[in-house]
Amino acid sequence: MSDTQAARPLIRLLPGHDRRVKAGHPWAFSNEIAMTPAARALPPGGAVRLEGDDGWRHGTWSFNPHSLIAARLLDRDPAAALDLDWAKRRLGAALALRQKLYDTPYYRLVHAEADGLPGLVIDRYGDALALQANTAGMEVLTPVLVEALRELVSPRLIVARNDAAVRKLEGLEERVAPLLGEDATARVEEGGLGFSVDLLGGQKTGWFYDQRENRDRVARLAPGATVLDAFCHTGGFGLRCAAAGAARVTLLDRSAHALDLAMETARANGLAERVEAQRSEALEALERMGAAGTRFDLVVADPPAFAKSRKDQPQALRGYGKLARLAAPLVAPGGFLFIASCSHHVAPGDFADAVIWGIGRARREAKLLFQGGAGPDHPVHPQLPESAYLKALLFQLA
Amino acid sequence: MSDTQAARPLIRLLPGHDRRVKAGHPWAFSNEIAMTPAARALPPGGAVRLEGDDGWRHGTWSFNPHSLIAARLLDRDPAAALDLDWAKRRLGAALALRQKLYDTPYYRLVHAEADGLPGLVIDRYGDALALQANTAGMEVLTPVLVEALRELVSPRLIVARNDAAVRKLEGLEERVAPLLGEDATARVEEGGLGFSVDLLGGQKTGWFYDQRENRDRVARLAPGATVLDAFCHTGGFGLRCAAAGAARVTLLDRSAHALDLAMETARANGLAERVEAQRSEALEALERMGAAGTRFDLVVADPPAFAKSRKDQPQALRGYGKLARLAAPLVAPGGFLFIASCSHHVAPGDFADAVIWGIGRARREAKLLFQGGAGPDHPVHPQLPESAYLKALLFQLA
Repeated sequence: MSDTQAARPLIRLLPGHDRRVKAGHPWAFSNEIAMTPAARALPPGGAVRLEGDDGWRHGTWSFNPHSLIAARLLDRDPAAALDLDWAKRRLGAALALRQKLYDTPYYRLVHAEADGLPGLVIDRYGDALALQANTAGMEVLTPVLVEALRELVSPRLIVARNDAAVRKLEGLEERVAPLLGEDATARVEEGGLGFSVDLLGGQKTGWFYDQRENRDRVARLAPGATVLDAFCHTGGFGLRCAAAGAARVTLLDRSAHALDLAMETARANGLAERVEAQRSEALEALERMGAAGTRFDLVVADPPAFAKSRKDQPQALRGYGKLARLAAPLVAPGGFLFIASCSHHVAPGDFADAVIWGIGRARREAKLLFQGGAGPDHPVHPQLPESAYLKALLFQLA
Repeated sequence: MSDTQAARPLIRLLPGHDRRVKAGHPWAFSNEIAMTPAARALPPGGAVRLEGDDGWRHGTWSFNPHSLIAARLLDRDPAAALDLDWAKRRLGAALALRQKLYDTPYYRLVHAEADGLPGLVIDRYGDALALQANTAGMEVLTPVLVEALRELVSPRLIVARNDAAVRKLEGLEERVAPLLGEDATARVEEGGLGFSVDLLGGQKTGWFYDQRENRDRVARLAPGATVLDAFCHTGGFGLRCAAAGAARVTLLDRSAHALDLAMETARANGLAERVEAQRSEALEALERMGAAGTRFDLVVADPPAFAKSRKDQPQALRGYGKLARLAAPLVAPGGFLFIASCSHHVAPGDFADAVIWGIGRARREAKLLFQGGAGPDHPVHPQLPESAYLKALLFQLA
C-alpha cells in the first residue's frame, strides 16, 4: 500500500462544521462534509486530505462516502505516507504499550481510534492474531498492516475476523478467513490457566480480554467460596475462580458448545472435580435457584449486550435491573455480586442505577467495592468517551 | 454504651418526605423531620427511632438537631441495642471484608456509611489505628467502638484524629489525642516499602490508602523510567516508583517537612541515590520545567483538593485544566501522565473533561488507559454515589 500523497483527493468540511475536528475529534460526519459529486465518487476507505472551509489543514483521513462517519483521522500530517513504515510506527507504538503493561503476549494489541487506527481491532494470542477491520479505511490498509505485523511479531497465524455487524454501516461484507497461516487454533494463558481459543468459529475475536483485570479482581475473592458464573460463555470467570481455590463453581450458559469448551478447559487444568456445568437460560435459572433458596458466596453475571442499538436502551436498563433483582437473592450474606454490561448504548451511571435498583428490590443492603471498565489494553480516545463500553460493578451484600 | 431501647425518642419524618429514606438512603435532612421542641432539645448524636408520617418504622438512627443531616441510619431494626455486641458485629464485618481483600493489615478498616457506621473512618496500620468520628452519633459511640476494636484486633494504639473540618457542621470540637496507648508512631508497609506514619501530627489519618491501587498501577510503569511526583507529600507515588526500578525520581512539594519525611523513607529503604527532592510550589515548578524543556517518562500529579466547597467547583475545574496543561509538556513522547482529584465537589466526567482540555491545549495526543477511584477498602454506599470522591486518570501521551 502506498498511495501517492500529491494525488490524494481533497475533502472540505462545510462552513461552521470544523469546531469538533479542531478540538481533536477523530471523526467527521457525512453531513459536515462538502459532498461534491467527485467526493461521492471516491472509492470507500481511500486516503484523503481534509481541510476546513477556512483552509485549515486537518491532516490525512480515510474517507467513505457511504458511511455516516464519512472521514476518520489517520494522521495529523496531510502528507503522511500510509506505507509499511507508517503501519510499523502505529502498530509498534501499540505493541510497546502492551509490552509495558503485560508480562506475557496475551492482550488486545490494537484498540481502534485510541491507538490511531480507526476501526481496527487486533487481539494477540502469543503467535496468533485475530484482526477485525470495522471500517473501509482499515479494509484498504489490511495488506500493509499484515506485512507490518509480520515484521513486528512474526506471527504463525493471522485470522481476519471480519464478521462484526458494524461492517454493514461501512458497506463491507462479512469475511472470516485466515490472512496468514493455515489453522485457526490458538491458546490464551491467564492466571495460570490455559484456554483454547477458536479464532474462526468462536465469539468475536475469540477471547474477552476486556474483562481480564475484572477476572483477576473476582478471582481474589474466590478462595474457599462457592461460585456461580452466569452467562459463563467458555468459563473465563468461573474457571479463574476455580484455579484460585474456589470450593465449588457452577457454570451457567444456554450454549452447550460453550459449556463443552469450558469443561474441556476445566479438565485440561485439573479443575473438573470442583466445576459443574448447567445448561439453561441464565435468567430463568437464576429465578429457579432463588425460589429454591440456593446460595453462593460469589455470583458473577456478565451477560451479552442487552442494548444492540440506542433505541433498546430503556429495555436494556430494565433488563439489567431484573438481572440484579434475580441475582442478588442468590448471594449469601457477606458474599459478593459482580455484574457487568458491555452495551455501548448504556451509560455507566444509568447501568449502576439499574443494578442498585434491582439489589434494593431484592431487599439486600450493598457496599459498592469497585466500579470500572476494561483493562488498559483497551485505551479510550479522549474525544470518544463512549468507546469505554464495558461497565463493571462489584458489590458485597449484607 | 447501652441506651435503653424502650425509652428511645421517636422522631417523625414530615408528610411526603419519606420516599428517599424508603428507597434506602441512610440520611434524613433537618427540613424533612418534624422538629418539635422535644426533638430540638435532644442531645446531639443520641439514638432515636425514625418513623414516617404513615407509621412506617425506618429503624434506629442517630440524631443531631443542630446538623443539616439531622438523622443517620444505624440499624434497620428499630429496637437494635447499640451495645458492644452491635459494635463488634459492625466492625467485624468491616474487618472480614478487608481481610479478604488484603494479605497484610494495612488498609482503611471502616469507611463510614458504606460500612454501616455513618461518619466514622478508621485507618489501620498493623497494631495502630487512627479513628475519625465526623458525626455526633459516632462521637457518642466512640467508647463502645474502642472497646470493640480492642476485642477484635488488640491494638497497641488508637488515636482519635478528630480534626476534620466537617466536625464543625455537627457542632463537634477538634480533638487529636490518643484513645489507647501512649505514643503516636506507626508504620505502613506497601509494595515492599516501609513508611513511617505520624498519627498525631501528619495529614488526615496519616496515610492515603485511597491511592494504593493507583500507586500499584503507576509503579508497574516505572521500571527504567524517569519520574516526576508533583504534590508528592511524603512521597508515596514517587518512592513506590523508585522501589519498582525507576531510573530517577524527582519529588516535588512545597512542604519541607513532607520532603524530609520522604527522603528519610528513601534512605531507610536504600533508594536515596535515585531520589531527589525539590521544594517548590508545584504549579510554578511545572511551568518552569516546561519552559526549560525538562522531560520525564512518567509524571504524577496528585494535588490536594482544589474544591473545598460546591461554590469552588468552576475555579477547581479551571485549576485541573491548568494542571494538565502544565504537566503534559513534561511527559516524554510515549510517556505517561497520572492525574487525580480528591475534590468531593468535582464530578468524574467534569474532571476528565478539564484534564483532557488541558492536554489538548498542550497540543499532545493522549490515550486514556485507566479511569477509576479509590480501592475496595473505601466502599461506596449505593445511595451516596458522591462518596466516591477520588477520581484518577492515567494517560499515555504521544
